[in-house]
This record gives sequence, structure tokens and C-alpha cells, in this order.
Amino acid sequence: MILHGYFRSTASWRVRIALGLKGIAVEQRFHHLRKGDQRSPDYLAVNPQGLLPALVLDDGRVLTQSLAIIEYLDELVPSPALLPKEPVDRATVRGLAQIIACDVHPVQNLKILDRVRALGGADAAAQWARTTIVEGLDAFEAIIAKLPGPFCFGEQPSLADIALVPQLGNARRFGVDVQWQRIMEAEQSCLQIEAFRSAAPEQQPDSDI
Amino acid sequence: MILHGYFRSTASWRVRIALGLKGIAVEQRFHHLRKGDQRSPDYLAVNPQGLLPALVLDDGRVLTQSLAIIEYLDELVPSPALLPKEPVDRATVRGLAQIIACDVHPVQNLKILDRVRALGGADAAAQWARTTIVEGLDAFEAIIAKLPGPFCFGEQPSLADIALVPQLGNARRFGVDVQWQRIMEAEQSCLQIEAFRSAAPEQQPDSDI
Repeated sequence: MILHGYFRSTASWRVRIALGLKGIAVEQRFHHLRKGDQRSPDYLAVNPQGLLPALVLDDGRVLTQSLAIIEYLDELVPSPALLPKEPVDRATVRGLAQIIACDVHPVQNLKILDRVRALGGADAAAQWARTTIVEGLDAFEAIIAKLPGPFCFGEQPSLADIALVPQLGNARRFGVDVQWQRIMEAEQSCLQIEAFRSAAPEQQPDSDI
Repeated sequence: MILHGYFRSTASWRVRIALGLKGIAVEQRFHHLRKGDQRSPDYLAVNPQGLLPALVLDDGRVLTQSLAIIEYLDELVPSPALLPKEPVDRATVRGLAQIIACDVHPVQNLKILDRVRALGGADAAAQWARTTIVEGLDAFEAIIAKLPGPFCFGEQPSLADIALVPQLGNARRFGVDVQWQRIMEAEQSCLQIEAFRSAAPEQQPDSDI
């Protein structure tokens, strides 16, 4: 399989964590978002959305959207499971992941912040990113505060942790003070695991950090 | 079960379609987004994110995020299935739904357009909405053009159609010319089905259309 990604793309980072947890090796291809590589005709032929990541299967079929890719990997290699067993618990974990993957990250990604900057300038864009991240993480914290720890949901990392950890990296880049108690507990638990550590941006071959 | 929603919220609309397809009856409670009902303390106690929809189960547990809720309903009542059987096909359908639920709708929902309006005025907000919708639907069309019809994926409606149809309603509200060929074919197929028709905003008790 070939993973098209970028070291700093939090959506690509999520997929790298899942691949690590599952022990699945892939070939990686890197596209520099800031230079616009993701809008090259070659890449648009892979993913018409021009976003990262995309996973190209051995038969040539292409999967896009990080949560869909991760659930595919979870169905392909069921252990360790990235979702709990009970439907209501699965929905809780998926809902947490979607708070970040729907309502936080796409609203403050590079493309959208470029548009905000064009309308209101650099300070407005930075404030936009922080507001979006803080609102999302406030809600995330309120929900996991009522769930068993130390991970977002119980004693194993799940799709919710996979979404959370890269978003925290992004939060810090934008100067957000990451002090939510249960979120910090979940992050610390994740960082005990090699798959989370080795997926970090600064560990990637295309990193310029 | 209690569904907290709003007639015009496309995320609530998705859940209404899924409930209809599954034949699940729920009590509905309505929150007027434009009046800010979703930010009342009572509702924030249900969903700390202050977004619609939320599904309150009979035991009091709360599910949020429309795609997570719909997959819960699909696991609870497996027929008719809202996802194909093969993992790669499931990922394709989930990816399509996420194009809309992650990269289109949250970027042009009421809250975000209010922020854009504050930065750049009403015309900028309307243009922002149209650009976001057209980019997403262009990619959606490019992907489903290669998939079997007449629905987004094959001969039965799936999670992808459930995400698509409300977004098309939104597209038309913003003056987008909806002319994508495969998308129109999928929408026409959906509108043959009562669950899609009865979930439309103008059919809801709280509608002022």
C-alpha cells in the first residue's frame, strides 16, 4: 500500500498512528502542502479533493479521508481494536473523533486559514485557528471527563486518541495553552506507545522541523 | 430515544433520513439555530459542543456527531444496511460521507459563516459558502462517476447518499447551480424513497419554510 501524506498534516499523522498500532508497513510518498504539491495534476488524479492523506491499495483502488482509512485498517487487521465492542461505546468514540475531524481540523487547516488571512489578515487567521481549536477541545474534554480513562475511552487507545494527539500538536503550534486535565491524561498515555511517538511530524523523512 | 434537531440543520437532516430508512421512531425536540437555542445551558448539558443533532438514548446516554449516530443506528438495526459489506467498499462510502461531513458542511455552517461575515461582510460569506460547497461536490462527483449507480454506491442508498442529499439542499439555498451528472442521478434515486422525502426541512414540525 502507498500512503500519500505530509509530515505536518494532522490527518496524515492520524493514519500513521493507526498503521503503527496495527503493525502495517506501507510505502510513503510526501507532498509539501505549503508548496501546493497536493494540487498537482498527478496527485489530483489520485485524490480529486487535493487533500492528504490518500491510501492507494495494492489493486490500485484509492481510499481518502483519514477516519475512513483508519476504519478500513481496523477492519483489515482487527487487533488491536481501535473501537470498543458495544455499539453505544463505538458511537461515543466515533463521535469524539468526529469532533476533531469534522468541527476542528477542517475549519483551521492550511487552505481555510489562507482564506481567512485574505479576508482579515494574519492576526485574524491565528485567532480563528485558536478559537476553533479551543471550542472543540473544551467540548472534547467535557465528554471524556465522564468516561473511563486513562485513554479517551478506557484502557486502550482508540480512534478518539488517534484524532486527539495530532490535534494537540496543532494546538500548540497555534499557541493554545493545552491544559485540559483528561485530555492531558489521555495524551500522556498515548505517548507511552511507540506507534504514537514514531508517527509525530518531527520523526518523518520529509520533516523540516 | 430523543433526537435534538432543527429543521434546516443538514446534520440533523441526515439522522432523520437514517431513522426513516431503519423505521425507527423517536421523539423530536427542536432548537432554533438562528435564535441560538443550541447554546442554552439546558442544551449544553446535553451536548457540550452546542451543535445539533444529539441523540439521547433511553438510558440517558447521549450520542453526538451525525455520522457516529447513523453508524450506531446501522449497528442497532442492521437492515437495510447503510454500508456495503466489503471493507474497501465501506471505506469508499465512509470517505464520501466524510468529504461532506468534514470538509464541506462544518466549513460553511451558520457559526462559521457568521465569523466570515464579521471579517469580510455578507458577500464574502456567501462566496465562501459557494466555494466550499462547489469544491467538495466537484470531488464527490469525480469519485462517484467511477462507481456503480444509480445511488452513490450501487443499487441501495448508503451513508454517502444520506450525507449528499441534505448538502444539495444547502447548496441550492446558497445559489449553487447543482448540475453534477452522477450526483443528480443519485439524488433522483434517493427522492424515490419516502424516508428521504419525509426528512426534508419543509416537512418538519419546526419548519418556517
